[in-house]
Amino acid sequence: MNKPHREFAGSGRIEVNHAGLMALAAFLFSGTLFAKPAEDDAKLLKKAREVFEPLPKDAATGEFPVSTDRVNLGRMLFFDPRISIDGSGSCLHCHQPALYGADALPKSRGVHDQVAPRNAPTVLNAGLQFKIHWDGVFENVEEQATKALLGPGFGNPDHTAAMARVKAIPGYSEMFQKAFPGESDSMTAHNWGKAIGAYERTLVTPSRFDEYLGGESDALSAVERRGLSTFIDTGCAQCHDGPAIGGGRFEKFGVVNDYWNETGSKEIDQGRFKITNDSADLYQFKVAGLRNVAMTPPYFHDGSVGTLTEAVRIMAKVQLGTDISENDTSDVVAFLRSLTGKLPDDFASAPVLPPAAFDPMLSGTASKAVSRPKPEE
Amino acid sequence: MNKPHREFAGSGRIEVNHAGLMALAAFLFSGTLFAKPAEDDAKLLKKAREVFEPLPKDAATGEFPVSTDRVNLGRMLFFDPRISIDGSGSCLHCHQPALYGADALPKSRGVHDQVAPRNAPTVLNAGLQFKIHWDGVFENVEEQATKALLGPGFGNPDHTAAMARVKAIPGYSEMFQKAFPGESDSMTAHNWGKAIGAYERTLVTPSRFDEYLGGESDALSAVERRGLSTFIDTGCAQCHDGPAIGGGRFEKFGVVNDYWNETGSKEIDQGRFKITNDSADLYQFKVAGLRNVAMTPPYFHDGSVGTLTEAVRIMAKVQLGTDISENDTSDVVAFLRSLTGKLPDDFASAPVLPPAAFDPMLSGTASKAVSRPKPEE
Repeated sequence: MNKPHREFAGSGRIEVNHAGLMALAAFLFSGTLFAKPAEDDAKLLKKAREVFEPLPKDAATGEFPVSTDRVNLGRMLFFDPRISIDGSGSCLHCHQPALYGADALPKSRGVHDQVAPRNAPTVLNAGLQFKIHWDGVFENVEEQATKALLGPGFGNPDHTAAMARVKAIPGYSEMFQKAFPGESDSMTAHNWGKAIGAYERTLVTPSRFDEYLGGESDALSAVERRGLSTFIDTGCAQCHDGPAIGGGRFEKFGVVNDYWNETGSKEIDQGRFKITNDSADLYQFKVAGLRNVAMTPPYFHDGSVGTLTEAVRIMAKVQLGTDISENDTSDVVAFLRSLTGKLPDDFASAPVLPPAAFDPMLSGTASKAVSRPKPEE
Repeated sequence: MNKPHREFAGSGRIEVNHAGLMALAAFLFSGTLFAKPAEDDAKLLKKAREVFEPLPKDAATGEFPVSTDRVNLGRMLFFDPRISIDGSGSCLHCHQPALYGADALPKSRGVHDQVAPRNAPTVLNAGLQFKIHWDGVFENVEEQATKALLGPGFGNPDHTAAMARVKAIPGYSEMFQKAFPGESDSMTAHNWGKAIGAYERTLVTPSRFDEYLGGESDALSAVERRGLSTFIDTGCAQCHDGPAIGGGRFEKFGVVNDYWNETGSKEIDQGRFKITNDSADLYQFKVAGLRNVAMTPPYFHDGSVGTLTEAVRIMAKVQLGTDISENDTSDVVAFLRSLTGKLPDDFASAPVLPPAAFDPMLSGTASKAVSRPKPEE
């Protein structure tokens, strides 16, 4: 772990020369010499604890446990491309460990050159969010995984066809039976989703910010704490709160100004309105969770913005009506970087899958495999 | 590492009951009670050492060193999809750690739904082969990687466009400078290939067979040794030899019988003839390296055969004119399984890539990204 910079303590003899003066001037200009005293640090920590929570060790619930058998099975299924219609798609394809569980694309590429309708968020800490997908159409990661089998990432015509692919791979049958004991037919799409979900619920990434919330005030540098303070005082934390620093509610994107004027989005996305047809839901999206946000550009539901600095500026402008200064933006970005945790070992590292060839003839999908479905977008 | 089964030693009192008699009968039937004596083991080891070699610790050469800086850079580039025309392709996409460096497909899927012309072999131990690709069109892994930037896996229109993508990602510039010191412009497609190649040359996977070759005769079980003996005596080892158990020469596929009558291949592939137009090269392919072969179905240049048992039967038939027995096949398969090594840690585990969004507008490739090139096949 990187140790945060200590502030200038003022003790000790200072040798002044030209370079020293220049450095001192830079120091003064940056404001770190006039850092807030310790009382303010205590206040900031108290304020932070009122809106944020440290990450739990996993996102298990009573309904969705993370038993070892389920997690091991889910991890293998997550990494396995043979469940997709052409053998090239997988959970992994849009949620790559090397890219912190996302894919760096504005919108993901699925099988048969399909483009997903919205940006793929990281799978890390996703189990902590109150709904899944930008429009919250899925209640939990389990439901999302189950439905993904039929989406552009996998392209299966139905769940029977998808599970026929799973069943054709020797080894999975026993793993399903162990993960879902006592079920007469455990190899179902729902159990696929539950296994993947169990795995995803283990993918939490505590960072220095959690140490800070735990009381280690200097786990964040002075700049990061200033950014945290600005993040709270400007109003960002009104929505980006809780253990996932967001992911807990829907909000309109563009409270004060139309978002597309700032993001340069080519299409205007109506958000939850598309599902509910309720005008109150126009441009409503799930508030993004900001854990690891520095590692997962591009930003927003359409991946229209490539840098965190620009994303922070736009959020202040269109959500809060604030023209945030460059210094404040830079502080907030520094704070957001402190939300980057370590990749979980079981995510960074691939499991070894049971060897078996992808069978293009399975479930009569071969003829579909050479046709080209129209992209959903 | 799994310890091999010890053979029945014949000492000690044997309690005979019904179950014991049945087990003894099965034992006798399987032939292990009449295992060859130690002199034959010594002969087999000697014979094996005449055709095979243990894996070296890496596949570095004077021309292609595996310096830490090159390997680290190459590993990141290998895992990075942002160098492809639509941000979805990468070395990793067709060479997945979870699938032992292959993709389980008959033929790989590239960007824009393109299908590669032949089956993707594992990247593991590829640096040890004398040429690269089934037709040996590339001299080494470095050349293959460089050319792959323009193939169906990446889809770049030219190397300038490909390297513009690399240059757009902050962090790579410094890594190239470190990996290729003293070069005024180190961010070239050739150096991309050299870095990827350096990484690939570290991906060697010693197995129990290497311990056997080192003199530990019981590192292989009796069945595996019998399979090894059959593998040599039947003639397989005439071509599948050296440290990679193949990968060292071209041979005609179908020496005795036309291969497609046995593989059921839908298309007849002329092999090296397509490159050389020399009738002597008709149906000539590079002999496959058999390291980890049990982990990388399907088999042959067109992935037309899904199981190792069937692949062994076909090879005996069409290359050697032998109708190999089921028992012999099963022994050979047992031997081939002993060639499965451990995944290298730096391959099983993903590196963390410098965060940056894929930019579809780079190099004016955006308009091409929405068109659909004709598959090369």
